[in-house]
Amino acid sequence: MKDNVLALKVVLANGELMTTARRAKKSSAGYDLTRLIVGAEGTLGVITELTLKLSGIPEAISAGVCPFPSVEAACNAAIATIQSGIPVARIELLDELQVKATNLYSKLALPEVPMLFVEFHGSPAGVAEQAERFGEIARDLSGGPFEWATKPEDRSRLWQARHDAYWAARGLRPGAQALATDVCVPISRLAECVTATQREIAELGLVAPILGHVGDGNFHLSLLVDMNDAAEVKAAKTLCEQLVERALAMDGTCTGEHGVGQGKMKYLAGELGSPALAAMAAIKRALDPDDIMNPGKIVAI
Amino acid sequence: MKDNVLALKVVLANGELMTTARRAKKSSAGYDLTRLIVGAEGTLGVITELTLKLSGIPEAISAGVCPFPSVEAACNAAIATIQSGIPVARIELLDELQVKATNLYSKLALPEVPMLFVEFHGSPAGVAEQAERFGEIARDLSGGPFEWATKPEDRSRLWQARHDAYWAARGLRPGAQALATDVCVPISRLAECVTATQREIAELGLVAPILGHVGDGNFHLSLLVDMNDAAEVKAAKTLCEQLVERALAMDGTCTGEHGVGQGKMKYLAGELGSPALAAMAAIKRALDPDDIMNPGKIVAI
Repeated sequence: MKDNVLALKVVLANGELMTTARRAKKSSAGYDLTRLIVGAEGTLGVITELTLKLSGIPEAISAGVCPFPSVEAACNAAIATIQSGIPVARIELLDELQVKATNLYSKLALPEVPMLFVEFHGSPAGVAEQAERFGEIARDLSGGPFEWATKPEDRSRLWQARHDAYWAARGLRPGAQALATDVCVPISRLAECVTATQREIAELGLVAPILGHVGDGNFHLSLLVDMNDAAEVKAAKTLCEQLVERALAMDGTCTGEHGVGQGKMKYLAGELGSPALAAMAAIKRALDPDDIMNPGKIVAI
Repeated sequence: MKDNVLALKVVLANGELMTTARRAKKSSAGYDLTRLIVGAEGTLGVITELTLKLSGIPEAISAGVCPFPSVEAACNAAIATIQSGIPVARIELLDELQVKATNLYSKLALPEVPMLFVEFHGSPAGVAEQAERFGEIARDLSGGPFEWATKPEDRSRLWQARHDAYWAARGLRPGAQALATDVCVPISRLAECVTATQREIAELGLVAPILGHVGDGNFHLSLLVDMNDAAEVKAAKTLCEQLVERALAMDGTCTGEHGVGQGKMKYLAGELGSPALAAMAAIKRALDPDDIMNPGKIVAI
């Protein structure tokens, strides 16, 4: 998303209204204030206006669903697709538990194995060719059958499991609290990271379906926790900590999309080192000397 | 380019070595220090290491050249191509003077009118289809004949004028100094901006071929100036100032790629307003309190 933000208007701590950029598609006019503010979680100012890039609706779209024998095979198919230069518009992983949750919630009959959901944009001939080539890659990696379609109603049906994923996950354990977290690793380490995480979820006796934006090496856990069970809450905390440690050990980040807030502040020094943390604190102090903008988040000053 | 930078190592003013990010493709772990440093022109630290995204060599490439009756027609063809969702990998404009310069320098016989140079990446069928669809768009806008090829040697021949553009421009006026500058405007205003600039170049009696990255609304001038002719130097200065004023009046930026340095410092307040300038100065003071990192550039502190 952040790459689609061209410019911002931001109310600063001193009450002034800052414009970060004009409407040109690119600029090298000074420091990139747009990207500094996006992702700052309100700690440097309050965004009051955004200028976004627009993308046309593609002439044609193909979308499909493909089961795989393992998370590793699914991740390898994603990597091979990207490395082949197939311009995949979306490529999402649902792990076996997330598929099971969706079968229950959306009354589907998908095979309860890891699945990739893909979408291609382009000309009618182009999206057909891209889907077919993805299907070949999947087959080579023991995936399939790959089902795909171009008509909107058929695409919606195929992607329903993905669209319902959040509520389906919650439906797995009514009454439990859903704790969402994410990490991101180099794509080459994604299969290993997801597989190790699944193993640990099982060892700790937790329920946590996984959904991954595999093209980015980013994945989300929906931890379904009985907050009245102190042992389970403790196990969930252990899982979250190990998840971050594992991502960092793989040269990844403690969060791909969710942000730092308060919960992940303790990981930043380990991820980036103290000079980066000191630079963030210096920037925060420079732009918000009285610490009035969403204080106590990201970095302590 | 900057979107291809994943992470940096930077020596800061205090002598510390800062790592801005890990190797994950995306992160929301704190302020985006990578993008803050890229484009800071060394004023916040010295980059000593970069981690870059890699892209595979496409399976197939098509490339072509298309003359147009006017800069406006060429720009409209670029806009229509992008709006049609054709994933054009490169789309470059050479104005009539730049084409003339290249004919002389590279011994070509191109029609001396505005020309678009395009390149498409994908599968063999995909790049052929994309080239054909671009050709149809160009024809609808009175462009053509559109010549395109897929073999490397044919593509190199077609793109030679683009590859030789810099030296060809310099060759137009041996002994003159080449002053390079750029601006960037919303794509919808590009034709108007380039045409008005050409008119002013003619009125001021200057020699300045134009090369545009039209997909971004960004274009470069190579001003060929006899530095011993005071009147000409003054006219060149006027042209550069008017160029920026025009870009800003069109909601563009004083520089798309070249940066601010010292020469364009005076435009930043007009482009972004004083709150942005004050924020940049505050960041500079916070990270380089003694002003030892490329002092006197971008923003005065």
